[in-house]
Amino acid sequence: MSFLHGIAASNGIAIAKAYRLVEPDLSFEKKTIDDTNSEVKRFRMAMEKSTSELEVIRDRAKVELGEDKAAIFEAHLLVLSDPELTGPIEDKIQSEKINAEFALKETADMFITMFEQMDNEYMKERAADIRDVTKRVLCHLLGVQLVNPSMIAEEVIIVAEDLTPSDTAQLNRKFVKGFTTNIGGRTSHSAIMARSLEIPAVVGTKAATVEINNGDMVIVDGLKGEVHINPTPELVEQYRKIHNEFEAQKAEWAKLVNEKTVSADGHHVELAANIGTPNDLKGVMDNGGEGIGLYRTEFLYMGRDQLPTEEEQFESYKAVLEGMNGKPVVVRTLDIGGDKELPYLELPKELNPFLGFRAIRLCLEEQEIFRTQLRALLRASSYGNLKIMFPMIATLDEFRQAKAILEEEKAKLQSEGQTVSEKIELGIMVEIPSTAVLADQFAKEVDFFSIGTNDLIQYTMAADRMNQRVSYLYQPYSPSILRLVKMVIDASHAEGKWTGMCGEMAGDETAIPVLLGLGLDEFSMSATSILKARSLIRNLKKSDMESLAQKVLNMQTTDQVIEAVTAATK
Amino acid sequence: MSFLHGIAASNGIAIAKAYRLVEPDLSFEKKTIDDTNSEVKRFRMAMEKSTSELEVIRDRAKVELGEDKAAIFEAHLLVLSDPELTGPIEDKIQSEKINAEFALKETADMFITMFEQMDNEYMKERAADIRDVTKRVLCHLLGVQLVNPSMIAEEVIIVAEDLTPSDTAQLNRKFVKGFTTNIGGRTSHSAIMARSLEIPAVVGTKAATVEINNGDMVIVDGLKGEVHINPTPELVEQYRKIHNEFEAQKAEWAKLVNEKTVSADGHHVELAANIGTPNDLKGVMDNGGEGIGLYRTEFLYMGRDQLPTEEEQFESYKAVLEGMNGKPVVVRTLDIGGDKELPYLELPKELNPFLGFRAIRLCLEEQEIFRTQLRALLRASSYGNLKIMFPMIATLDEFRQAKAILEEEKAKLQSEGQTVSEKIELGIMVEIPSTAVLADQFAKEVDFFSIGTNDLIQYTMAADRMNQRVSYLYQPYSPSILRLVKMVIDASHAEGKWTGMCGEMAGDETAIPVLLGLGLDEFSMSATSILKARSLIRNLKKSDMESLAQKVLNMQTTDQVIEAVTAATK
Repeated sequence: MSFLHGIAASNGIAIAKAYRLVEPDLSFEKKTIDDTNSEVKRFRMAMEKSTSELEVIRDRAKVELGEDKAAIFEAHLLVLSDPELTGPIEDKIQSEKINAEFALKETADMFITMFEQMDNEYMKERAADIRDVTKRVLCHLLGVQLVNPSMIAEEVIIVAEDLTPSDTAQLNRKFVKGFTTNIGGRTSHSAIMARSLEIPAVVGTKAATVEINNGDMVIVDGLKGEVHINPTPELVEQYRKIHNEFEAQKAEWAKLVNEKTVSADGHHVELAANIGTPNDLKGVMDNGGEGIGLYRTEFLYMGRDQLPTEEEQFESYKAVLEGMNGKPVVVRTLDIGGDKELPYLELPKELNPFLGFRAIRLCLEEQEIFRTQLRALLRASSYGNLKIMFPMIATLDEFRQAKAILEEEKAKLQSEGQTVSEKIELGIMVEIPSTAVLADQFAKEVDFFSIGTNDLIQYTMAADRMNQRVSYLYQPYSPSILRLVKMVIDASHAEGKWTGMCGEMAGDETAIPVLLGLGLDEFSMSATSILKARSLIRNLKKSDMESLAQKVLNMQTTDQVIEAVTAATK
Repeated sequence: MSFLHGIAASNGIAIAKAYRLVEPDLSFEKKTIDDTNSEVKRFRMAMEKSTSELEVIRDRAKVELGEDKAAIFEAHLLVLSDPELTGPIEDKIQSEKINAEFALKETADMFITMFEQMDNEYMKERAADIRDVTKRVLCHLLGVQLVNPSMIAEEVIIVAEDLTPSDTAQLNRKFVKGFTTNIGGRTSHSAIMARSLEIPAVVGTKAATVEINNGDMVIVDGLKGEVHINPTPELVEQYRKIHNEFEAQKAEWAKLVNEKTVSADGHHVELAANIGTPNDLKGVMDNGGEGIGLYRTEFLYMGRDQLPTEEEQFESYKAVLEGMNGKPVVVRTLDIGGDKELPYLELPKELNPFLGFRAIRLCLEEQEIFRTQLRALLRASSYGNLKIMFPMIATLDEFRQAKAILEEEKAKLQSEGQTVSEKIELGIMVEIPSTAVLADQFAKEVDFFSIGTNDLIQYTMAADRMNQRVSYLYQPYSPSILRLVKMVIDASHAEGKWTGMCGEMAGDETAIPVLLGLGLDEFSMSATSILKARSLIRNLKKSDMESLAQKVLNMQTTDQVIEAVTAATK
């Protein structure tokens, strides 16, 4: 039994067997072999295992993905049965008295190099096939496992270095009970994904893939950020209890699903949800969301090989607006670039993508992409209560340009006789320090602000939030961050506008009391955090939180702030 | 005659022939050859040219770099004369009727792949030799030039995509009269280097390497940011006049070398210089620097294969302190990471190095490096007026940790009987937004601030200052930047401390009037900008600039600020 400490990324307790989503170590040494006949036998065995494995995968793929997607595995099987490849490998083992791994790799590499040098797409694909097949055979020779998450067919806890969006897309929600990763923080993709799937997760354990073997029994404690490996039966029992208590607590919170979010002294704030697709609406309803505070439209653009059409976008926006039935829906226009790439756009690689050509910067230059999205949004606007916000606004000039483009598209649509709502509020994300510092000037021209704390914190602290080595600087409760938040809220109120927050901080128990005290109007978070936040706010007095906020703004360090909040809310 | 517009990166006019520091285009097509005999002849010719070229280089290298460095070229010559390589190429041309380029490349690639796969360092080096030699022969076949800047032996203007620190290190200052690049801005390395070498430069022309051919006559106008290619004799004449006027203007400024920097209404500020090595002191003296506002100690650590010893560092720091003869010297402790790498430290690659593990973040973790530098500084302190500042401070905790380490080393040195000055001021760079926002709290604990605008602007605007696609966001005159600068200056004055600025903005003609109005105490810049700045400040009234500053702080855009400054100072 052993133990790992990490970051509690998604609430709850999960107990299941480990499934390592880890690239296997395929390194090996060149060895001299005396008994070359049994080495050839070993090689043939690995070939057979690979063949029967590929046949299963091909058959499943035919059923689940269709004939055309299964063709790739058919090609792999052809490679495996090609004597032009296997012959030389076996000869090499016999004549050079070397191990199968080395003979395989050297022969395959020769063919790969040869095929790749040919100026012929077909032959280049053959090179890729040989590479894939070689890897599979090598795995069998070395006795390591080739990962294939789409084949998971029992309840598991995923163990990985990190999970990319494409990894999570492949996971079967039915069988994945929790995950734990080596790297990442509360705002990494894996963490956000875990919360949206309501799967317990512990990230940033540093050593999950080192300490946990395939099949180990694992407890993921997403409440405290702990991972227990091969626990004693007593500990499992204890955790089943905690799990049940957590479920009971959730049942208690669930009673608040139709309640308003009102502080103990009668101040109402809005608790909204962050969503990625229309599919997330059910979670918003189930958790009593009072609106959508952030609809991330990037997902419409991802996992495909070309831009979504205006019509496709229109259908999605309409579905969300109708689904929310008149409640506010804040849509963020396309925020790609940074860590969110779209391969089909062929954006140039950047040295510092987080400080690069992304979001509104890209949309103002690639205007056709932007205009298509705006047209789809404008057309959908009459189906609900739409608010549009632009991401990564750093200067008033950028906001004015974006607004002008929106006005142009609106006029065009109207001249074509299309209905466009006249009540669309137009706001901006405040996630760049310059915009927070100049919020009083912005407030004269925008209808609302939404503070994006994930980025605002990383820029204000000059620390990449995905970089483990500087993660100590990701400090939501730093007095400097709180001061910027105050500047934004005060600036909006002075002009009769409102301020929301759609970063992770909005759903954070330590931040909520201070944000309430600072006068934040809307808190937008993972749907699964809403009921807990509502329960918390109903127990706080806004007037007390105002004094607390005043106090922490003049503190020197994050630790002092945490201490003060804990003292004021216990 | 043609014309390019770019960014004026370093003052002055240069007129000379172009030298393209550009990787040649080595792409070619596979062709069928009928007359294979003359194709073989063409191949042999290219081999001969490569051989005689390499012989010259080897001989020069022997004289200038020594026998051991020349050995690499000896190895290249061996490759050229190896029939095992040349034989198959000629056979291939004859038998396959293909062009020499293709035969060369295919044969060489085969050998390279073969040698690289061998588990043998010697053979791997041979692979690298073949690669280098192939490139050279290919250049001759294609009629393109392989660049070799260390061989420049006449007055030239360097034309490049960009210049890296290692490129500039290879340039012979005697022959390089100016440069022009496709990318970069006023704060890129090439720009800073040009100013420190007092070489006129225009960067960010986008097309210098496209429009300018080797040997073209070029005028670099570093005053206006223009490049003229193959100018008419009239234009050359005109530019000779401008050049003479600029020299006369410089002579006028030179009269201010021993004057104090005092505004028209009697307010004194300090004009200091940014330096990289003790060699830069002469330039500081020649230009009337009143101190060193930024001694970048990174150069001590660069272009070598191990860390500098305490003794080496001590000698450099002592030389600068003694050289400045009691005038203030602000030394910035090691700022590596980001775009400044030290290969021998083997730092992990980061996705966003500008938001990564650099400067004080690294020093607080790799404490031996930091302590060695602090000991060297403390020992040198008694030789002059030393002030120490820490770079990239984001939180008070970091400053307190760094200060504690300094105090420990000081106590150790004193217990060993070493003399350490008791008057060392301890400050921080303000280059991270959080630190500017929290300056009032920092001011209680530091002795001074130095605002590093290059980084402060890039973090505040969330725009990589080296990334051309977002360079429009690098806005020193943005009201948001000016507000942060004001916060810092006001915070320091409230605690009786002082604020300097050591970013590019401190020497900028448009910024200086506002900075004077905001009450900046020390302006530190390229030595070559000091006299011009002194001349400017002596013509400004601080009281007028205070009103100007008050006005621009409440403006909305950079353009408005520039307009207001121009109107107030014309």
